[in-house]
Amino acid sequence: MRFLQSLIASLCIIILSCSLYAKTPVNPPRDTTDISAYKPYIDNNLDKHLKEFIEFVSIPSLSSIASHKGDVRRCAEWLKAKIQSIGIPDAQVLETEGNPVVYANWNQAKGKPTVLIYGHYDVQPVQESMWTNPPFSPKEENGRIYGRGAADDKGGVAIAIWAIEALLQKDGKLPVNIKFLFEGEEEIGSTHLGNFVETHKDILRAEYAYNVDAFQKSDDQPEMVMSVRGGATMEFTLKTANRDLHSGVYGGKAPNAAQILAQLIATFHNSDGKVAVEGFYDKVLPITEEEKAMAAHSDYDEKKELSDYGVAAYTGEKGYSSVERVWYRPTLDVTGVWSGYTADDGFLNIVPGSAHCRLMCRLVANQNTNEILDLIKKHIASHLPEGVILTYKDLGGASIGPAIFSTNTPAFRAAFRVLTILYGKEPMLMGTGGSNGAMSVMMDKLGQQTYSFGFIQEDENYHSHNEFIRISDLKKGQYAFCMLLKYIAAGQK
Amino acid sequence: MRFLQSLIASLCIIILSCSLYAKTPVNPPRDTTDISAYKPYIDNNLDKHLKEFIEFVSIPSLSSIASHKGDVRRCAEWLKAKIQSIGIPDAQVLETEGNPVVYANWNQAKGKPTVLIYGHYDVQPVQESMWTNPPFSPKEENGRIYGRGAADDKGGVAIAIWAIEALLQKDGKLPVNIKFLFEGEEEIGSTHLGNFVETHKDILRAEYAYNVDAFQKSDDQPEMVMSVRGGATMEFTLKTANRDLHSGVYGGKAPNAAQILAQLIATFHNSDGKVAVEGFYDKVLPITEEEKAMAAHSDYDEKKELSDYGVAAYTGEKGYSSVERVWYRPTLDVTGVWSGYTADDGFLNIVPGSAHCRLMCRLVANQNTNEILDLIKKHIASHLPEGVILTYKDLGGASIGPAIFSTNTPAFRAAFRVLTILYGKEPMLMGTGGSNGAMSVMMDKLGQQTYSFGFIQEDENYHSHNEFIRISDLKKGQYAFCMLLKYIAAGQK
Repeated sequence: MRFLQSLIASLCIIILSCSLYAKTPVNPPRDTTDISAYKPYIDNNLDKHLKEFIEFVSIPSLSSIASHKGDVRRCAEWLKAKIQSIGIPDAQVLETEGNPVVYANWNQAKGKPTVLIYGHYDVQPVQESMWTNPPFSPKEENGRIYGRGAADDKGGVAIAIWAIEALLQKDGKLPVNIKFLFEGEEEIGSTHLGNFVETHKDILRAEYAYNVDAFQKSDDQPEMVMSVRGGATMEFTLKTANRDLHSGVYGGKAPNAAQILAQLIATFHNSDGKVAVEGFYDKVLPITEEEKAMAAHSDYDEKKELSDYGVAAYTGEKGYSSVERVWYRPTLDVTGVWSGYTADDGFLNIVPGSAHCRLMCRLVANQNTNEILDLIKKHIASHLPEGVILTYKDLGGASIGPAIFSTNTPAFRAAFRVLTILYGKEPMLMGTGGSNGAMSVMMDKLGQQTYSFGFIQEDENYHSHNEFIRISDLKKGQYAFCMLLKYIAAGQK
Repeated sequence: MRFLQSLIASLCIIILSCSLYAKTPVNPPRDTTDISAYKPYIDNNLDKHLKEFIEFVSIPSLSSIASHKGDVRRCAEWLKAKIQSIGIPDAQVLETEGNPVVYANWNQAKGKPTVLIYGHYDVQPVQESMWTNPPFSPKEENGRIYGRGAADDKGGVAIAIWAIEALLQKDGKLPVNIKFLFEGEEEIGSTHLGNFVETHKDILRAEYAYNVDAFQKSDDQPEMVMSVRGGATMEFTLKTANRDLHSGVYGGKAPNAAQILAQLIATFHNSDGKVAVEGFYDKVLPITEEEKAMAAHSDYDEKKELSDYGVAAYTGEKGYSSVERVWYRPTLDVTGVWSGYTADDGFLNIVPGSAHCRLMCRLVANQNTNEILDLIKKHIASHLPEGVILTYKDLGGASIGPAIFSTNTPAFRAAFRVLTILYGKEPMLMGTGGSNGAMSVMMDKLGQQTYSFGFIQEDENYHSHNEFIRISDLKKGQYAFCMLLKYIAAGQK
């Protein structure tokens, strides 16, 4: 779905190539991306790396669950020790107002550019009963490692560290200067990353920045992300009584919190699929002709996706294609709702006295998360019957801005070129409906364009149960990083 | 709420008294309800009885949860043994198509009427986290026994058995013939009681029938129930995808099962509080002048109830008072709803692919449960967007008819008189919004009017957490039963 059609990709490449070719030979010397010196090390150390990886994925670094705070920190310490062990002594666990950041710095490549690599070591929650294998007892099976975070994003973090390890082991040094920035709050909206980046600008400066929390389309088709949506979440509770009431004794007169919540949720969207919250679209920019073309020419296989997910038909805002809705349009989705008796079995004859709702908005460039949350709160307050008690739960202010990236930078060109050589095919350029706090924050606070350079594949259940990563991609990712750093070191801008 | 105002009660009593006094002295001889011979036994055995009671309440006889099937049967066997131990050898565990019935028969009071006592030994489910003390580890505190089922209805069952025990211990015989009918499926709508009664008509025949699954208004105000609502439950699931989908990657195009369920629930009621299901009210009889007067003169303290339960104001069908809505009007209430990520903590950025809903209807005389369930299914089917997969879960066909009882029977008069003497006040006659499968089934299959004669009080959290029963009522109930059986034996009709 989220891919640029080759026609448009080719057009971009031609334009890019013009500036690229002005500075570098048409065919860059083979040695700039030649990794034959490192490949044997990467291949021979696979078993050792998988053992480490299983240790890494075993740590339940669940950033959204308070009782796992200790595990999140344990994971950060594990990561710091791992980075030091490969020959980067300057690895630190740095405090934020929330979970710590793991930062590392190797700066002995005098005169060479600095490359910052971003990733995150925290993971999504799990609904354990739905997993075939326990999510924090990772398991190798059929060339895959199964476990929460294996793909998102512990795989990406491990790949980057292992690639640096290979370079250091073979050469005793790196071709460029390297900074690691591994966050522990990505899955809760990178809550404190903005402040951290603001107060650590000096140590974060880099000429190149890449995000390993990213995808490739398939085994033989690379991709790069050129825009991300923002995100804002909210949780609230409606209370109509201080307890659930017997449906015989009170049914007919007692207000039903479940029904009032349902009636409220039903007001969130119009029949044309638009969000019905007043002012929701006020700051949304119209889709440009270029964006429209990019979406129109994506090679998105809607039929296959619908069949894979058992969805009869996509819905959403009238007047836009599915790809446009996901890449360029904001959303309001209920992500969780519960009220009354919800246990698997049995039933209680009650009129529920309270009802709970979680929401997630995806936002697009120019929308402001806090403004949007305020508009929704206003909508809720004005659509509730009198006497209903409304309370909001603080989710830690998950709030991520949207961002758009340029195709006209050395960092973009390096990644584009390396992926083209490695996969034998040019990356598709695409928007994405997802959010990435780091990519938004780096842009906002440092003016730093951060490019996707990760190796998750779409089918790896990264926010669902039975998450996994392909072992072949754990290797391919290391090749890619070695090529990328060699390429940048060679001065090809 | 559910009480007849004294004016109307008095009127009834005058009318009743006419026929009553025609056959019996104005002041029945003191000895017909004199229980001074049994009271010391009841009082002196309290500790022994409480120990037994704690054993009884400890058995998690949860009829609505399949995994507790064994516990339900264990409870039935416990009850049978208990009844045999007091000197009724003919106690049996009789099979039904579901949970067994505990039946007992003592028929040595030649020439005396037979009194059938109905109760149930199964209990409502629990939300254990909300209980101060574990629901199946009953505890005595402040003159109360806390535990699931303590009030509803193990207290009533125990009271009846202990009262018979006292009579047998003191006299070596009973003043009347006795039948026990203790059911194991009341909390799931007395699913198989109808068939059981149909096929066991012979052994169930009785001149008098009482239901211990019933209330008294307070320590000094008795009550009797003159009508019950029927009940029908339903559980269904909407599926829009075979999994929850990432809200970034799919948000904007993927159908949201939680929202579709909310939109559906919002169609269940009109803005005037009426159920919007076509045909729902077709068979409802208009409220009679007598019923209207009874409701109007109930001494229902709405203000206190609202304040106790933290409810701002009652709602419901326009054109009816709160009491009328509960006693005489049918309802449709959502009793449970869940979709997406519902864990206490954390959040998942998903578009839910499925959503679940439980419903409960209370029905009134002349409505048919299956017809109503069919109308609701028709409504649901016609209000869902295309492509949504709808499935129903079989809840065991919980379906209870409504019933109305006469004030012109010996069984009514005996209970009314005994409660008047014991409480020093006439019982309030009232409708109730609740359902009672047995009272409906006995009427339907045997033409047997079954009168409420139980000692639960309204504040005892009988379908909620921290259920309890007053120890004083465990004693008072035994006095009442001894009086009732003596009174009936004396031939006062």
